Amino acid sequence: MTRRPIGIVVNGVTGRMGYRQHLVRSLLAIREQGGLPLRDGTLLWPEPILVGRNEAKLAEIARRHSLDTWTTDLAAALAQPGVAVYFDAQVTQQREKAVREALDAGKHVYCEKPLAPDTATAAGLVRAAAEAGVRTGVVQDKLFLPGLRKLKRVIDSGFLGRILSVRGEFGYWVFEGDWQPAQRPSWNYRAEDGGGIVLDMFPHWQYVLEGLFAPIRSVQCTIATHIPTRRDEAGAPYPATADDAAYAVLELADGVIVSINSSWCTRVNRDELVEFQVDGTGGSAVAGLRRCRVQPAATTPRSVWDPDVPSTVDFRAQWQEVPDNAEFDNGFKAQWEAFLRHVAEGADFPWDFAAATRGVRLAELALQSAREGRRIDVS
Amino acid sequence: MTRRPIGIVVNGVTGRMGYRQHLVRSLLAIREQGGLPLRDGTLLWPEPILVGRNEAKLAEIARRHSLDTWTTDLAAALAQPGVAVYFDAQVTQQREKAVREALDAGKHVYCEKPLAPDTATAAGLVRAAAEAGVRTGVVQDKLFLPGLRKLKRVIDSGFLGRILSVRGEFGYWVFEGDWQPAQRPSWNYRAEDGGGIVLDMFPHWQYVLEGLFAPIRSVQCTIATHIPTRRDEAGAPYPATADDAAYAVLELADGVIVSINSSWCTRVNRDELVEFQVDGTGGSAVAGLRRCRVQPAATTPRSVWDPDVPSTVDFRAQWQEVPDNAEFDNGFKAQWEAFLRHVAEGADFPWDFAAATRGVRLAELALQSAREGRRIDVS
Amino acid sequence: MTRRPIGIVVNGVTGRMGYRQHLVRSLLAIREQGGLPLRDGTLLWPEPILVGRNEAKLAEIARRHSLDTWTTDLAAALAQPGVAVYFDAQVTQQREKAVREALDAGKHVYCEKPLAPDTATAAGLVRAAAEAGVRTGVVQDKLFLPGLRKLKRVIDSGFLGRILSVRGEFGYWVFEGDWQPAQRPSWNYRAEDGGGIVLDMFPHWQYVLEGLFAPIRSVQCTIATHIPTRRDEAGAPYPATADDAAYAVLELADGVIVSINSSWCTRVNRDELVEFQVDGTGGSAVAGLRRCRVQPAATTPRSVWDPDVPSTVDFRAQWQEVPDNAEFDNGFKAQWEAFLRHVAEGADFPWDFAAATRGVRLAELALQSAREGRRIDVS
Amino acid sequence: MTRRPIGIVVNGVTGRMGYRQHLVRSLLAIREQGGLPLRDGTLLWPEPILVGRNEAKLAEIARRHSLDTWTTDLAAALAQPGVAVYFDAQVTQQREKAVREALDAGKHVYCEKPLAPDTATAAGLVRAAAEAGVRTGVVQDKLFLPGLRKLKRVIDSGFLGRILSVRGEFGYWVFEGDWQPAQRPSWNYRAEDGGGIVLDMFPHWQYVLEGLFAPIRSVQCTIATHIPTRRDEAGAPYPATADDAAYAVLELADGVIVSINSSWCTRVNRDELVEFQVDGTGGSAVAGLRRCRVQPAATTPRSVWDPDVPSTVDFRAQWQEVPDNAEFDNGFKAQWEAFLRHVAEGADFPWDFAAATRGVRLAELALQSAREGRRIDVS
Repeated sequence: MTRRPIGIVVNGVTGRMGYRQHLVRSLLAIREQGGLPLRDGTLLWPEPILVGRNEAKLAEIARRHSLDTWTTDLAAALAQPGVAVYFDAQVTQQREKAVREALDAGKHVYCEKPLAPDTATAAGLVRAAAEAGVRTGVVQDKLFLPGLRKLKRVIDSGFLGRILSVRGEFGYWVFEGDWQPAQRPSWNYRAEDGGGIVLDMFPHWQYVLEGLFAPIRSVQCTIATHIPTRRDEAGAPYPATADDAAYAVLELADGVIVSINSSWCTRVNRDELVEFQVDGTGGSAVAGLRRCRVQPAATTPRSVWDPDVPSTVDFRAQWQEVPDNAEFDNGFKAQWEAFLRHVAEGADFPWDFAAATRGVRLAELALQSAREGRRIDVS
Repeated sequence: MTRRPIGIVVNGVTGRMGYRQHLVRSLLAIREQGGLPLRDGTLLWPEPILVGRNEAKLAEIARRHSLDTWTTDLAAALAQPGVAVYFDAQVTQQREKAVREALDAGKHVYCEKPLAPDTATAAGLVRAAAEAGVRTGVVQDKLFLPGLRKLKRVIDSGFLGRILSVRGEFGYWVFEGDWQPAQRPSWNYRAEDGGGIVLDMFPHWQYVLEGLFAPIRSVQCTIATHIPTRRDEAGAPYPATADDAAYAVLELADGVIVSINSSWCTRVNRDELVEFQVDGTGGSAVAGLRRCRVQPAATTPRSVWDPDVPSTVDFRAQWQEVPDNAEFDNGFKAQWEAFLRHVAEGADFPWDFAAATRGVRLAELALQSAREGRRIDVS
Repeated sequence: MTRRPIGIVVNGVTGRMGYRQHLVRSLLAIREQGGLPLRDGTLLWPEPILVGRNEAKLAEIARRHSLDTWTTDLAAALAQPGVAVYFDAQVTQQREKAVREALDAGKHVYCEKPLAPDTATAAGLVRAAAEAGVRTGVVQDKLFLPGLRKLKRVIDSGFLGRILSVRGEFGYWVFEGDWQPAQRPSWNYRAEDGGGIVLDMFPHWQYVLEGLFAPIRSVQCTIATHIPTRRDEAGAPYPATADDAAYAVLELADGVIVSINSSWCTRVNRDELVEFQVDGTGGSAVAGLRRCRVQPAATTPRSVWDPDVPSTVDFRAQWQEVPDNAEFDNGFKAQWEAFLRHVAEGADFPWDFAAATRGVRLAELALQSAREGRRIDVS
Repeated sequence: MTRRPIGIVVNGVTGRMGYRQHLVRSLLAIREQGGLPLRDGTLLWPEPILVGRNEAKLAEIARRHSLDTWTTDLAAALAQPGVAVYFDAQVTQQREKAVREALDAGKHVYCEKPLAPDTATAAGLVRAAAEAGVRTGVVQDKLFLPGLRKLKRVIDSGFLGRILSVRGEFGYWVFEGDWQPAQRPSWNYRAEDGGGIVLDMFPHWQYVLEGLFAPIRSVQCTIATHIPTRRDEAGAPYPATADDAAYAVLELADGVIVSINSSWCTRVNRDELVEFQVDGTGGSAVAGLRRCRVQPAATTPRSVWDPDVPSTVDFRAQWQEVPDNAEFDNGFKAQWEAFLRHVAEGADFPWDFAAATRGVRLAELALQSAREGRRIDVS
């Protein structure tokens, strides 16, 4: 089979995500498997051009993986022959400028999330990409995790019948930083630095809900800053100004009701850090990132609410594990392959800049709902 | 010890709850244990006067339990010598009239829930009781169940530190009545017959939240009729017009946030049909009707949100069972004892007509919130 | 509620089935529960008239259960006032004559199975009952057993999707009578005495298949007399002339294929003596007389046929028990109640003489198929 | 000991089976163990001559295993000195021509199954081999799997007494390809491409039944295409025209009755994907590919068919595992050793071209039986 090279500028490759998940476990892994087979029989072959701000680090990465092109000059990288894709894994604040530069150069663009710190900026990039006539994508890796892929399969099989409701519980305890250091950076808890659990997680909920169920019709949200004072990386106390928990109820376009709690101030009494329970007329499913269990209507117990009689039923034993039935590839690599097929042969790819913009917007509307104490339409 | 008899008119004793829970398992059980010991050393001795509409049934109950006073005439019963308490276990619609008759006769009044079908009627009874200068009570049995009593004990111990949030999940699947008969009466699903899960359950949530944590400050609720057509007791289809699920977020007076889902259209992936998770700075607790488990801050795992690494932690094994450390008496009997002590020696009894009125009102405000799509103040 | 008596002649009450299953566990059990509630609010009250050939045994049964009418004279019994139903639990050969006498007397008739030893006789009774204008029924108790009722519920729920095939395995080892006495009577193994597993079991398979799935379209059967010599009740050897195993494949009206093996010469490597596996597009079920387990499409493992790799999958653990969700009444009593409602208020009752005739006919056609080595149409 | 080399032309060695099972795990494995010991004390030493159509691949295989003879020219390979055996692992369509060339060259011939796509071609090869006066063999690997070898041992021991019947269940669910990709190639479901479960599996059933029990006397078969539309490797729907399930009853020469169901539309409620239950007068056995369990007459429970009494017997616990008592070699290697002994020293080898022809013929007759609705003689 013929190899078809495709140049990809990887900006921010010296960061943890850029290096590990995107370069090593995605682009180089595609090369290790012999390239990405296209429908025309050719094998797409990624040729990464490494970009970052620290030349020494870039050189070291290039050497380790026998790559020959790296630079601290983005314009020079974009001007390399054969470059078709620009990928951005920089910090959010620097993304807009670099992405616009790539769009101006006529490159297809793929980004780490979030696309932008606010809807306005994100929408501006949607317009710029449309004007440039290129293809875009934003990382939405949760959909590619085994638990949600098995849930998707269960949904597609029709097992759930008509879906009625979704309950999401996400969270764990983030230490306050006093007697035990915090396991998240302190800016996460400062509104002025772009922190807050709503901005962090609602873009995920947006694509998970839209990807698995239906577009979101309305959102209603209550937020809290349960822990008002935390200690930072240096052990110094600081006021937490951002939300550290959000309690939301959403309606989807098809009438499904979603209750989703997100919290950094809860202890985990579940099987996984995030779990979604989906109830339908035909059955129910409970999915986390790795596992998915189901209960069909046909084996649903006839529960009776009789508080004076202790129940002897082991309810959790009445659920059945959905088997993997497949080797689940790394989620980042799977999405890279989908994006590259989108670029190379026009395959479907729903997770573009416009989709990412809807995620940023949902977070903004949720915060507005919390402020105004009302249900807000997500048109 | 001296026995001190107290006459109690038991109206509605021929019904299942009136007979089984209140007469046999509460009042007669108090006699079987030798009476209720008061602080003054005497033993309060309930003397039930049975009232109902079916004389034959009353006679049969009296015979079976060797009781000698029964009548279908409420006025005659209230006029019996030694009567201090009127208890009402009739259907809701007949409650107001009989309670007012007892209040007019100057009797203390204890009632099954709900006190009244709406806030206005309930509030009228609060005023009438105040004018009569008597003591009142309404059955609020959930608080007396072992799980919630152990949770109360955990809260009182200070273990939880500052309480931040409460998550309640209540529900199970009620069959639609087609291929398997429904396990609840059909009127529960008809708004025109007083059905709906909000009217059924929110009075419970009111006294549980107020009793364990703090008064409710606001409510925000989304309701659904997930199953629009059900089959009734005769197998005939009917339109379900009442809410069969409610997704609510409440704020308590002390800033605690409560998320509580109630549903007759969900399958149980919990240990009990209802569970409350309470998170605090010092630790967390998960309580159902029977069990209560805790996790202190000191053993809280340092969870990291890393979706690409399968978690190998058994989170649920990290919680510890709260031991009973006591024989938990039947909840109905325990509350009867509290009410009788309230009547006989002025002991505290917070579950009076006013408290019950707040429960009815919470349900009404939750439905209003659902209609109007906004957070409603519960002053 | 008003009691409405109904006279029932119970012929053959001194036999094991007539006495134990029909009189004690059905008719008297209906009286013990207070009668059979009808839609008009009355309680149907069975008044058994005992008939048999041994007066002393009849008198003893009557005494034991405080019944006052018994006789060895069938005509006299049928002439008793208030008699509406004739029930026959005699041996098959005596059934036709007695049933015709009851039909001539204008009584509704209910019988133990088989209705008759051959199709012609059975069809004659169908015609006679039609001319008499009465209601008829034949015991088909397997359908009322918990396993098959749960399977029926699973089918009705739609869980199985489109049903594709049914595998039935029935059988156990009946000892030859030499070193261990046989646990079935010797006439079962003599064709000249009406023996054979096809005549014994195929009437059951007929109503089970028609009742759960669809009418039978064709039958193809191979029979064997695996053990040619057995010993009778006296220990004497005799030639076995009847079939002791039958291997059949049937097609149902809707295209479902049924493979069903019946054998008295097999050892049991199943959970129950009879099991049916039903495979459908939505899922599969395995039901015996007591249990029913299911596997939905959504949790179906991705099996791969790779004989060189030992499988490590515990396939049987991937099935989930269907909960009872109900107290299953004795099957005989349940069918008696259905027949009495059919007689008293015209409720549906599909198991009449015509249905029973189809069962006898299936057995005859199966034997013909075995003789002729071809698939036979069951029109 | 003396090494005695034997030249073996391995045609089709670049395919998965030819390379992995035959070259590496059989012929080279025999060399690794030091050669195949013959009765005369010499060690037979396979010298593979690699043949295929892709010279580069042949060279790479030769290099990897330090072999020195490979070619794309079959005639040249057969002309090599010392060549005694021709082995064919090509696709079925190319087999006849190459086998005839080898026969003409006077070589013994061993083949992958099926020997030919139809009985006529297979029979022609039988005749050609007879005329050439050489020894032939066809791979029949299932007989060499541990489960069936232990069953063979049980049969040979006389444990089963007179064998009465065999029940075979083979199958698993092959996904339709819509919400989950199919795990078998789409041509398996197209009659026009040689698909169908009868053509795939009945050759196996033929040699298993003949090898373990007795020659087949008659076959009666019903087939179905349960899933009429499937999706192919590209996700496109196609009509399934071949049988995906077959329900057969066979008689063996000694009167044993065999019921065998084969299906790609069933879910597995067994211990293995295929299982055979054999019942005999002395005991019974249940064997899969790996395991074999038995129950002797002496421990057979006295089962009684009493549907109203729930059985408390764990029938499956009453069977006992047959121990391996040996290391079971890879089935392919074991058959290679048997064939080489057959060639080198005239040892018995029943699995020749004539045996393989009977397998192809059984499949054809089964399909004819299904079409004509009758039992067909397999003379």
